[in-house]
Amino acid sequence: MQENYNRLIFPGRFQPLHIGHIKAIEYALNLSKELIIVVGSAQESYTIKNPLTAGERIEIIKSVLAREFGYDYCQRIYIVPIMDIEMNKVWVQYLLMLLPEFDGVVSGNSLVLNLFKDMGLKAIMQPMFNRNLCSGTNIRNSIIEGNDDWRKCIPDYLYEILEKYNFIERLKSLSRGD
Amino acid sequence: MQENYNRLIFPGRFQPLHIGHIKAIEYALNLSKELIIVVGSAQESYTIKNPLTAGERIEIIKSVLAREFGYDYCQRIYIVPIMDIEMNKVWVQYLLMLLPEFDGVVSGNSLVLNLFKDMGLKAIMQPMFNRNLCSGTNIRNSIIEGNDDWRKCIPDYLYEILEKYNFIERLKSLSRGD
Amino acid sequence: MQENYNRLIFPGRFQPLHIGHIKAIEYALNLSKELIIVVGSAQESYTIKNPLTAGERIEIIKSVLAREFGYDYCQRIYIVPIMDIEMNKVWVQYLLMLLPEFDGVVSGNSLVLNLFKDMGLKAIMQPMFNRNLCSGTNIRNSIIEGNDDWRKCIPDYLYEILEKYNFIERLKSLSRGD
Amino acid sequence: MQENYNRLIFPGRFQPLHIGHIKAIEYALNLSKELIIVVGSAQESYTIKNPLTAGERIEIIKSVLAREFGYDYCQRIYIVPIMDIEMNKVWVQYLLMLLPEFDGVVSGNSLVLNLFKDMGLKAIMQPMFNRNLCSGTNIRNSIIEGNDDWRKCIPDYLYEILEKYNFIERLKSLSRGD
Amino acid sequence: MQENYNRLIFPGRFQPLHIGHIKAIEYALNLSKELIIVVGSAQESYTIKNPLTAGERIEIIKSVLAREFGYDYCQRIYIVPIMDIEMNKVWVQYLLMLLPEFDGVVSGNSLVLNLFKDMGLKAIMQPMFNRNLCSGTNIRNSIIEGNDDWRKCIPDYLYEILEKYNFIERLKSLSRGD
Amino acid sequence: MQENYNRLIFPGRFQPLHIGHIKAIEYALNLSKELIIVVGSAQESYTIKNPLTAGERIEIIKSVLAREFGYDYCQRIYIVPIMDIEMNKVWVQYLLMLLPEFDGVVSGNSLVLNLFKDMGLKAIMQPMFNRNLCSGTNIRNSIIEGNDDWRKCIPDYLYEILEKYNFIERLKSLSRGD
Repeated sequence: MQENYNRLIFPGRFQPLHIGHIKAIEYALNLSKELIIVVGSAQESYTIKNPLTAGERIEIIKSVLAREFGYDYCQRIYIVPIMDIEMNKVWVQYLLMLLPEFDGVVSGNSLVLNLFKDMGLKAIMQPMFNRNLCSGTNIRNSIIEGNDDWRKCIPDYLYEILEKYNFIERLKSLSRGD
Repeated sequence: MQENYNRLIFPGRFQPLHIGHIKAIEYALNLSKELIIVVGSAQESYTIKNPLTAGERIEIIKSVLAREFGYDYCQRIYIVPIMDIEMNKVWVQYLLMLLPEFDGVVSGNSLVLNLFKDMGLKAIMQPMFNRNLCSGTNIRNSIIEGNDDWRKCIPDYLYEILEKYNFIERLKSLSRGD
Repeated sequence: MQENYNRLIFPGRFQPLHIGHIKAIEYALNLSKELIIVVGSAQESYTIKNPLTAGERIEIIKSVLAREFGYDYCQRIYIVPIMDIEMNKVWVQYLLMLLPEFDGVVSGNSLVLNLFKDMGLKAIMQPMFNRNLCSGTNIRNSIIEGNDDWRKCIPDYLYEILEKYNFIERLKSLSRGD
Repeated sequence: MQENYNRLIFPGRFQPLHIGHIKAIEYALNLSKELIIVVGSAQESYTIKNPLTAGERIEIIKSVLAREFGYDYCQRIYIVPIMDIEMNKVWVQYLLMLLPEFDGVVSGNSLVLNLFKDMGLKAIMQPMFNRNLCSGTNIRNSIIEGNDDWRKCIPDYLYEILEKYNFIERLKSLSRGD
Repeated sequence: MQENYNRLIFPGRFQPLHIGHIKAIEYALNLSKELIIVVGSAQESYTIKNPLTAGERIEIIKSVLAREFGYDYCQRIYIVPIMDIEMNKVWVQYLLMLLPEFDGVVSGNSLVLNLFKDMGLKAIMQPMFNRNLCSGTNIRNSIIEGNDDWRKCIPDYLYEILEKYNFIERLKSLSRGD
Repeated sequence: MQENYNRLIFPGRFQPLHIGHIKAIEYALNLSKELIIVVGSAQESYTIKNPLTAGERIEIIKSVLAREFGYDYCQRIYIVPIMDIEMNKVWVQYLLMLLPEFDGVVSGNSLVLNLFKDMGLKAIMQPMFNRNLCSGTNIRNSIIEGNDDWRKCIPDYLYEILEKYNFIERLKSLSRGD
């Protein structure tokens, strides 16, 4: 293991957190002394695209990190809710304003990677985990359609946590709409 | 020591962090298992009222917490930047959306205490430390006027940190205005 | 008739007002001394989803209420335009800030009902009137497609009022787009 | 009495409602069939300039109107909370979007009168009632300073209503600030 | 040639500029002494609907105008980035606030034409150029699908300019999404 | 004359334009091939701090530039209204999004200069012209107090232009306030 960076950020919406995220965090921790997990679209909740509040997402991430990385993960990782700014070209600078200094980003999203590159920061593509099945969108669609494929995208113990926060029922209820 | 609460929040602007804040955090940690330090007005910086960015304020708070409470402070405290919402009556609910569940607030600000009480949450008055001298406003005024009284309001080692972030010079420069 | 509540609210976008709304208002007036009709998405107009301005919607609602409930309806009902806040978890508190005190909501929308329940307020499901045909979305689609099914969803006299506000032509013109 | 207009608006912040407002409403009702009372800066509350929420202000106005004009005032007057738009030159058009059609404004504020004139609408100067003493600003200052001069600016029965909404205590507490 | 107006505006998103826009500008210059090109949705960029920043769009428009109309085009045309206001009914008044006085609009969009007419301004339908193929939406779809039909919608020299600003690659990359 | 830069920007509020601005523009034109005049706080008008709309300010600037630099000034200068973003640390990036590429800024405001320096851009201090008298603030105060000192801060011909836009009367009327 060799840490090349002082601090990287890992942005996501975490609707819900899945194995792809966990693997990416693991990967980032091998590259960087510290990691900021940015919980994006923090203003959104109770929609099909964003069922959980930012606060709920932070609680879920904390539980999983403690389980995966031990309770002292907090010495290297912090979790921050960030509201959208709706101006892509300004978004990285907005993060630079709100967050402790960072060297760059770890992400699987090419827009995010490009925006960071354009600002002269490091843009590191994360390894993908079963992407066709395990994106947030696919997981939410799978739940709405009532099949269980998505269960492969989360560690077993996370199912219970998601139930505690009512993720599955809330999403189904939202999809039945008005 | 007896911890009565699971999680409290401590909101402030930390322009700059001073002993009053440190004492309040200490006080809160005696009451609660966990504490969320809310770095408010996170969208503001480079003004006389808010010289530091939210990111800079977080870095300074982290340095001070490590020094005052040891590196495992992170198991009980987290620091979150929060932008203003400009609707006082909605602000507590906005925090409930963005943050992990909390029982109430520790604050020296009667507006904050009242807004939390109105929402049925705990509102705990912090002990004050030399308030006439050691409020953020008074410290910034003292710096602008060029006297050194404010130095009594911070631990000695913090002066160097503030200089590293250019707090004193930036504030003076801002006060000379356009 | 027995009035159990002092004040309820009935939120909708009223694009356009239809019999489902009228029945729900009637139902709410049997439960509550007073009713606030919240004209939501008040900032929107001249879109396919929201053809009418808030002002136009208020005028239409007033005409219909006078006709259905007599001119002294105003002693029990008021109509208030409310702009969106784009943060579902904060929306009920935002209404509590803007409106006279209320006990709860009457709605057919499960998201709305859930958000009110979460805030400890009453959430009363309205009776539905021919929902497959008579939702705002279905009515607007029916008009765009040029069929007359939607006419069953409004009292006859309302057609003329909608024509006075140019609802049908405006919607068709918007649907032909740019 | 001769009503020249179909509908006028009367905008104010009503922090608090006072005799000047009541006289202006009376004056407006002599000119117009209907009157919309616009409760402005509706997003503000719990500040020295705007202690009451919009909802509280609406409740107070309703009580006073019933007392002054009888319960059927509602057939001619409605009360609407309106949030600020922060662009003076656009404000009148914003009101035209949110409100039923109106002919013009009754106001004692020359900015308001000018903005309406510029849009080609009627701008009617209200008669002033003891302005040096009875503006919202002067009333709030008088309360903060602890003198009772302001009591001449409200009908006696309104004092009790203001106390019910905690206006006086809240304002004093806000003025002691943080 | 006969110039009937002192100043007209021509709003668009110019994602990308194409022959339809150039023809419309030519048409407008025959009607009006001056023309303001409004680069709309100026806050948007790096999305499929709005790949280019406002700054990039202005640079491209400037290059094309110089080529089509000579360097002194600037004595009759100016180019202004305008952010969205999200309230259609207020949009024209918002433009009246931000821009030098104008008589009306040239546009192919019926919503735009209607909003200007409602404000008592001139609303002039532009001649359309091969609309089925040469709208911004169709051009972007054609690029994403990888066919070259859209090349008929721009002058040959513009292709190179679009490549310089990375329009084609950026759009393709955005369409492959996250 | 030696032009060292391709494009610089000159931001101001121009409430009103005065000789200090004209001198700074002259100075900037000696340094740069092109200059963008940024009309800031474009959303503001009809306040004591910002009496003129952005559109009015643009018209006034255009008249003065034509007079001072001839009608072909437009080949080197453009004027752009820019609304505030209320986040100093993000402001320069926001300008980079909205405007054609630029090398840096000419300004007399140390905050502006610092924000540009922090972004790695050129920050050029403008020469000051009689600053104690001829800042926008001082000119507006002088007008409000009814003395004529400020007349030395504008070229004679500009007085008439300001009168045409009602600057002096509007400012006085606003200062008498409500």
